[in-house]
Amino acid sequence: MALVVQKFGGSSVADPDRIKRVARRVVDTKEQGNQVVVIVSAMGDTTDDLISLARQITTKPKSREMDMLLATGEQISIALLAMAIDELGHPVVSLTGPQVGIVTEPVHGKAKILAISPERLRQELNGGNIIIVAGFQGATNTGEITTLGRGGSDTTAVGVAACLHADVCEIFTDVDGVYTADPRVVPQARKLEAVTYDEMLELASLGAQVLHPRAVELGKEYQIPIRVRSSFNYHAGTLVQEGSSSMEKEIMVSGVAYDVNVAKIALFDVPDQPGIAYRLFKALADERVNVDMIIQSAKRNHTNDISFTVVQDDLGTAVKVVERIKAEIGAGDFIFDDGVAKVSIVGAGMITRPGVAAMMFEALADAGINIEMISTSEVKVSCVVKGDQIKQAVQVVHAKFDLAAD
Amino acid sequence: MALVVQKFGGSSVADPDRIKRVARRVVDTKEQGNQVVVIVSAMGDTTDDLISLARQITTKPKSREMDMLLATGEQISIALLAMAIDELGHPVVSLTGPQVGIVTEPVHGKAKILAISPERLRQELNGGNIIIVAGFQGATNTGEITTLGRGGSDTTAVGVAACLHADVCEIFTDVDGVYTADPRVVPQARKLEAVTYDEMLELASLGAQVLHPRAVELGKEYQIPIRVRSSFNYHAGTLVQEGSSSMEKEIMVSGVAYDVNVAKIALFDVPDQPGIAYRLFKALADERVNVDMIIQSAKRNHTNDISFTVVQDDLGTAVKVVERIKAEIGAGDFIFDDGVAKVSIVGAGMITRPGVAAMMFEALADAGINIEMISTSEVKVSCVVKGDQIKQAVQVVHAKFDLAAD
Repeated sequence: MALVVQKFGGSSVADPDRIKRVARRVVDTKEQGNQVVVIVSAMGDTTDDLISLARQITTKPKSREMDMLLATGEQISIALLAMAIDELGHPVVSLTGPQVGIVTEPVHGKAKILAISPERLRQELNGGNIIIVAGFQGATNTGEITTLGRGGSDTTAVGVAACLHADVCEIFTDVDGVYTADPRVVPQARKLEAVTYDEMLELASLGAQVLHPRAVELGKEYQIPIRVRSSFNYHAGTLVQEGSSSMEKEIMVSGVAYDVNVAKIALFDVPDQPGIAYRLFKALADERVNVDMIIQSAKRNHTNDISFTVVQDDLGTAVKVVERIKAEIGAGDFIFDDGVAKVSIVGAGMITRPGVAAMMFEALADAGINIEMISTSEVKVSCVVKGDQIKQAVQVVHAKFDLAAD
Repeated sequence: MALVVQKFGGSSVADPDRIKRVARRVVDTKEQGNQVVVIVSAMGDTTDDLISLARQITTKPKSREMDMLLATGEQISIALLAMAIDELGHPVVSLTGPQVGIVTEPVHGKAKILAISPERLRQELNGGNIIIVAGFQGATNTGEITTLGRGGSDTTAVGVAACLHADVCEIFTDVDGVYTADPRVVPQARKLEAVTYDEMLELASLGAQVLHPRAVELGKEYQIPIRVRSSFNYHAGTLVQEGSSSMEKEIMVSGVAYDVNVAKIALFDVPDQPGIAYRLFKALADERVNVDMIIQSAKRNHTNDISFTVVQDDLGTAVKVVERIKAEIGAGDFIFDDGVAKVSIVGAGMITRPGVAAMMFEALADAGINIEMISTSEVKVSCVVKGDQIKQAVQVVHAKFDLAAD
C-alpha cells in the first residue's frame, strides 16, 4: 500500500463538474489500494474575486486581513471536494491548514512553513479516510491565519508528502508535464520523462509555471519524488527526482525557460568598499523583496555598478528601498525597467561545458536580440532581454539546442 | 467608557458599499468613547450561494463539510469589514469564531455554544482595537469547525456581550425595531419602545424575525440589554430588557406574531400509559427535531391523540421517527400537514386575564378562520390555522387588540 499525495490546482476545481472529476480521480487512486492525501487550491477565479472585493474596500488592505480573506478560498474547495468524494461512497475528511497543524512563520502574505504535524494526518489515514487539505495556508504559533504566497499549494503538497514520508507527490495541472520549452511559445517542444530536482528547480525558478521552486526545494531536501501530470488525462507526466536524467544526452541542455515577471534595477557608482552590497540587499530583504539575479561589474574609479532583478510586484518597494539606501552608501543614480524578461537554459552539469553558454549567446545574437544581463549557475544560464523579444528568444534558443520532439 | 457589542446581519454587509457604511457606524460608536466588538454575518446571498454550490455536488452533503463550507461566509465578511475600518484609520482586528475561543458542542449544523473565552477579546480591547468577530461559528474542543444554525449570529453577539459583561448588545437589522405585528402584513403596526425578555422571547419564538429566541434567552440569562435597531437610520429602535414594559397598558397584549415555517403531525389512538409520550418525544429529540407545540387530548377509550408542530425542514425526519415509533408504542395512524401556520399574541402576565384568549378566538371566528391547534403560556396564546389564512389572521387579531399606531 503506497501513500500518495495529490495536488490539484485552481483550474482543476474551477466548478462543481470539475470537482466531481477530481473526486473520481482521487477515488481511483484510493481504490488501487493507496492511502491518499489531497491538497487543493481555491476554485478557479475565487482568489481573484476575493482580491477584487478587497480592492473595492481599500487600496491598501492589511496583509493580516488579506490572509483572513484569501484563506476562505481553499476552505471552500476542500469542503466541496470532500462532499464529492463522500458522494462516491468513500470515507473522507477535509482539513484546513491550521487544522492539519501547518505552522508558519508570523508573516502575512508569503509565510514560510516552519513545521507540519503528522499526528492528525496519521490519525485520519489510520481511520481509513481520504484526507483533503487546504493548500496555500497555515497558522502561526499563536493561531493567526497566514497564507504562503506564490506556489503555496505546491509547497503545502510537498511539505505534507515529506512529513508523511509519502511515496510520491503528484502535482496535477493543466499541462502534460515538464517540456523543453513552453509549448505555447515553441510548438515543437518535447515533454521530458524525468528531470532532476536541480534541473526542475532552475526550470521552475526561471519561469516554467508547472511547479513552484519552493516546492521543488522542499522535495529535494526530503527526497520526495514529484510527478507533474495533467488532470485532464492519464499520461504519466514528468517525474522529478534525484539522479541525472540528462547523463546520456549529447547536449546537456534539458529545457528552455522564460519569465516575463521581471523588473530590473541598476544602481551606478557604488563605492567599492566592503559591506556596501550587504547593506543594500539586507535592506531589500528586510522589506521582503525577493532579489533574483545580481550582477556587479567593477569599474576603474573604485566604484561599481550593481544591477539586479526582482519580480514586478516588488518593484515599487525595491525602488523605495534603493532611493533611501543610495544616499546612505554614497552611490550615484539608479534606473529601473519593468519592460524586461528572462530566458534561460537548464541542464545538469551544464557549466562544465563552456561551449553551451556561448551557443545560447550566439543564437540570441543571430536573431538580433540584445542581452542586458547574464547570470550563470551550476545548471543554468540566464539572459535578461527586452520583454517584447522574449518569445523569439525562447524559440531561437530552443531551436539552437535541437530540443524539439523527434 | 462603555463596552458596546454590535451585530450586523447579512443584508447590512451585502456589498462593499454597505460594508463601508457599517464601518463608518462602528467607528462613530468608537469615537463616542466606547469600546466596540462587532459581530457580522455572511454577506447578503453568500450563504445561499455556498449552499447552491454544495447542492451541485451532492443532494446530501455531510454536515461536517457543510460547516467547513459555510464558515467561510462570515470569514470573508470580517476580513472586509476590518479592512474598511482600517481604511478609516482605526486599529482593528478580525477574529474567526475558533480564534475568539467560541467552544461549541460537537454537533454540526446547529451546535450550541458551550463557552466563550474572554482572554483574546480582552487582550485586543486593551490594545485599543475594535474587534470584528465572525458570527454563526465556533469550534469543538478538538478544533472541528461548527456552525450554530438559525439565529447563530444573534447568539454569537449576545454570547460575546455576556462573556465581556458588555453594557449593551445592539442588533442591527433592516427594520426599525420590534413592532406590534409585521408591518408588511399589518401596515398600522406600531413600534414598541421596549419589551421584556419574556415578551421578546415569545415574539421571537413565534416568528418575529428581528431577533432569534436563542439570543433572547442568552440575554435574559446574563441580563444583557439588547437593542434592536435599523442599520439604515439612527432611530433608537426597541430595547429588550428586564421589567414589565406593558404594566400600564389596559390590554396586556404587546404584539401579534406569526410563523409560516410550521408543519403539523397528529398521531391517533396512542395508549394512555405512563412513558408513552416520553418515548415519542425522546426519539424525536435524539434525531434533533425541535418540537414546538404539543397537544394531547384525552379520549374515552384509554387512548389519546397527540398533535405537535415542528419546523418544516424537520418534517421529513419527524415523519420517519413517528413511523418507527408508532408500532413500538402501539399507536394508530398518523397524519401530517405542512400547509399550516401559527398566529400568536404576546404580552407579559396575559394569562392572568382570561378574556384575552377569548378575544383572539373571537377575532379569528369572526373572520371565518378555523383554529386547528391552541397552545397557551404565561405570556402568549398561539393558534395554528391554515397557511393561506395566516395574513388575514394576523390582521384581524392586531385590529381586535387595537394595537395600531395612534
